[in-house]
Formats: sequence, C-alpha cells, structure tokens
Amino acid sequence: MSVLIVGSTALDSIKTPKTENPRLLGGSASHAGVAASFFGPVKLVGVVGDDFPKRYLQLYQRHGIDLAGLQRLAGKTFHWSGEYEVNMNNRRTLLTELGVFETFTPKLPATYQTTPFVLLANIAPALQHHVLDQMRRPRFVAADTMDLWLKVALPDLLKLLKRLDAFVLNDSEAQQLTGEDNVLPALKKIHQLGPKYVVIKQGSHGSILSGPRGLFLCPAYPLRKVVDPTGAGDSFVGGMMGYLAAAKGPIDDHIRRAMVYGSVVASFCCEGFGLLRTTKTTRPQIDRRVKELEKLTKF
Amino acid sequence: MSVLIVGSTALDSIKTPKTENPRLLGGSASHAGVAASFFGPVKLVGVVGDDFPKRYLQLYQRHGIDLAGLQRLAGKTFHWSGEYEVNMNNRRTLLTELGVFETFTPKLPATYQTTPFVLLANIAPALQHHVLDQMRRPRFVAADTMDLWLKVALPDLLKLLKRLDAFVLNDSEAQQLTGEDNVLPALKKIHQLGPKYVVIKQGSHGSILSGPRGLFLCPAYPLRKVVDPTGAGDSFVGGMMGYLAAAKGPIDDHIRRAMVYGSVVASFCCEGFGLLRTTKTTRPQIDRRVKELEKLTKF
Repeated sequence: MSVLIVGSTALDSIKTPKTENPRLLGGSASHAGVAASFFGPVKLVGVVGDDFPKRYLQLYQRHGIDLAGLQRLAGKTFHWSGEYEVNMNNRRTLLTELGVFETFTPKLPATYQTTPFVLLANIAPALQHHVLDQMRRPRFVAADTMDLWLKVALPDLLKLLKRLDAFVLNDSEAQQLTGEDNVLPALKKIHQLGPKYVVIKQGSHGSILSGPRGLFLCPAYPLRKVVDPTGAGDSFVGGMMGYLAAAKGPIDDHIRRAMVYGSVVASFCCEGFGLLRTTKTTRPQIDRRVKELEKLTKF
Repeated sequence: MSVLIVGSTALDSIKTPKTENPRLLGGSASHAGVAASFFGPVKLVGVVGDDFPKRYLQLYQRHGIDLAGLQRLAGKTFHWSGEYEVNMNNRRTLLTELGVFETFTPKLPATYQTTPFVLLANIAPALQHHVLDQMRRPRFVAADTMDLWLKVALPDLLKLLKRLDAFVLNDSEAQQLTGEDNVLPALKKIHQLGPKYVVIKQGSHGSILSGPRGLFLCPAYPLRKVVDPTGAGDSFVGGMMGYLAAAKGPIDDHIRRAMVYGSVVASFCCEGFGLLRTTKTTRPQIDRRVKELEKLTKF
C-alpha cells in the first residue's frame, strides 16, 4: 500500500568549518519521502518555488515518488541555512526564508485522497489538519512535529493529536509538551491526549514506543562518524511508515520492526550532508543493518 | 565461583528538598557487593572506622558477604554528603571526609587470594593494583573507575588497564580518557590500552560492550521514577560480575546476559536512596525484569 507524506520541501545550505554544501535538497517531506520509498510507493504533498532545481525533481522521481501533489509556485523555495561549529556538535541557524511556504495551502489530487497510510511530517499543524481534512478514511495516520509548533501552535497541535493513530516526537519536545522529564510518565500523558501509539525519539540512543502491546525499546544503529544529523528524525518516521504500509496484517505485528527499519534509514541519513548518503542507499544495505541490529541487541 | 570485590565502603548522607537520609550505607564496594550477592558468594575488601554501625555489618552478612577482608580501624568511616536540587536531576557534593581511607592499605586474607573473579570497583588505581598484586592467577579481572582518577592518577590507571580483562567506565569518562565523543572510536582506543572487554555505561540509555564477539547494546530497564542514582554504576558492574562468576563455560557465552542482569540490579538501586531498595530486592524480582527486558527489546 502507499503512503501519503506532507511536510516541508526545502533547500538547505549547511556550512561546516571545512565545507559549504549550498542548496542541498532538504525538508521533512523530502527526507521522509525518500526514506519511505525504499519500501513502497510514496505520494508527496508539498510546495516548491520556480528556483527549485530540476535535478531534485528527478531525484524524487528516481525514488518513484508521486509528485502530483507537489505544487510549483512562482517565488522562492523554502530555504534554510545553518552552520556547524568545529566539533560538529552544535548547529546554529543562519537564515530561514519561508518563500512559497508562506502562502502554501495543500490541495490533494483525487488520486491521493484514498491513500491508506498518511504521514503528517513536520510542518505547521494547521497544514497537517488541512491535509487530513481531505483524506477519505485513511487506515493509519501518524504525525511528527517540532518544538516551534509546541510554542506557537499548541491548540492546533492538541486538536491534531485526537485525529492521529501515532504521534512521533523527540525527548525534549515530549518534556516541553508534558512537563515530564522521565519518558514513561511523558508517554502516559501523551496517550491521554489521543494517540494510541506514541514514539519518543532519543537521537543516537534510539527511540521508545508505547502502544497496545506495551513498550518497545528501539535501538539506534551505532555509527563511527555522524556527518550531519539533519533530517534523521524525518528519515526515521518516513522509513517506519514506508515499512508499515508495505507490511501485511495488523499494525501491532509490524510496528516494532518498522521502527527498526526507520532507525536504520536514519543512520544512513546521518552519514552524509542532507540526502547525499540516503539517496545512495540500497534496500539490501538497509536489510543488512537491520540484521546487524538484531545481532547487536540479542542476549 | 566467588567474586572478590575491592572498593570504597562509606557512609553517604543524601539530602533532598523533602528528606534527609543521613549516614546511609554507601561506597562502590557496598553497592557492587550487594549487587553481586544475588548470584553467588562475595568476598569484600575495604575499610571502615569505629563509627561504622553494626547494622551495616549485619546487612553485609545477611547478603552472605565474606567480611574477612574488611578492615576495622580506629577513626572515622569514609563519609560523603551531597544534596539534590528540586528537580532531583542535579546533585552537588557538600562534604567528603576520607577518614580511615586516608591510610588504607588492603591486605588480602589467604582465603581471598585464589578467588577466580576479581572486581576492582571504583577506588584509587594504586589500591586496585595493590589488591591485584596479592591475587594468584585470577580467571577474570574487571575494573571500574571515576573521572577523579583520570585527572589525578592517570599513569596508575593506564598501567592498570594492561592488567585487566574488562574495563567499565561511563561515557563522559570514556571521552575524557580518549578525546573521542563518539562511543565507537572511544571503544577502539580503550582496547588499544589493554582490555579485551570494554563496557561504556550510558546511564538511563543503557551500556555498550565491545569484545571478541563484537558489540552488544545493553538496554537499561525503564523506570517510572528515579529516586537516587547513587551507586547505580557500581550495582551494574557488581551484578554483571556476580552473574559471570556464577555462570559456567566461556565468558563470551554469558557476558551479554551478565550485563543485562547488572542493568536490572542497577534499576532497583535507582528506586531508593543508597542501598534501601537494592537490599529489599529478591532474585525472582531480578529475573522478572530481565524477562521483561527481553520482551521490551525483541523485534
């Protein structure tokens, strides 16, 4: 089955002490879309300006991503620019130009409206609602978010939580949302806000799922070197949803393995700037790291 | 088989905004000794003053801990006092009185010298050497340490590393020792310093082993509430060594499960001040959490 993914489609300029990396393909929908594409068909919803390089459209297409829902408007593509410090640990934003995103209203093609799996990747909750409003009885809806929306659009986000099957957020966002710094009470409070499945991401320490079959501690694939973690969270949730949509049978039978697959796609994402490493990844490489993780966690 | 454990035997006074907890039994050897005692016989090496409460000697004895190597000297027992802030996350030291530890020279009873498993729990590396000097061909030697010894006794510690089978330290100490903030290159560098097995502890995120059979990602048991993490690292390594000493066959066949057992004993340690919760723990409770961890990590 296919996954519909809405989120940001952006150009990211990432500076380091050694390299420049201008105008890489970025955005939550790009990372999640490419990640999901390893498992099955993806329908993208987003917006780009007339400066959006043709090679990035071709990149989406090479990954079999349906672009019928990608609007191309006059104006500039959403552009984010940031800089890493010498130790590559701290990143600071230099510039954020919303461009065509400022007036974006997603309008779903008819062919999109019956997609069974829906991923509302990180984007303003109002837009996530707007996409969901146009869907006809999707089977499974997941959403990601970021600290910004907890600050500036909390009422919208709280309304969204009641419409979700799964909510994915990172540990600092979970603390921001619930006031709990311990992950277990935080998970409990988020369930009370609506979602049946809650996933808290913990960066290089993996992630934790709470669902009808209890907790699952999902490992992160250990990396020798992290080049750029931008988009890792989006890759995680994209890979997870792609795997889930491709699996047959109940969600509960597959969601743990889906998270491990998401975790592995995220590991590839971290090994290059932007999508440079992810787009070179193959399904056998992904399967190999999943097998490795099985061995690394067995006792 | 039994484990010999040398380390600090202390009185810990732990203040929180709500409670006082004066003169609890503490110290690395106390935590590691009680943790190891769930699996088999333990021989303790340490020193206490004439103010050491009789009830703590009885506590050791209730856990079947051999006290022939525990010196009782005139003077004060090592006393540490600390205070937690309101959120229970930050702890600051109020006072450290070395007492009888200032002049302590461990002298092993003859019955101790052939113990097959040796745990050099956190204590000055010179004392760890001194204990090891008195041992006759132990089968497996592990050591723990702390940031202080990396600062003030690095040459001694580096010499010790060449005498160990296993070295256990936490992530910030590994970074301090190797200059690597990524755990994989840090593990590699520590192997080059001597030990065949290296374990890096990551607090509530579990721990990672590097050994002849590759890496193992050991989970931490997720807790609803952490009351006091003091001694958790000592409990981890104590439980691990206790389990290993009780297991039959090659180390490599058991070390992963040994770490999981250590991790579970550490989880009980965190649920009470000092040793208050650990000493109430039973082997069936430990086995139950290990089983739970199996379920929580399976995919």
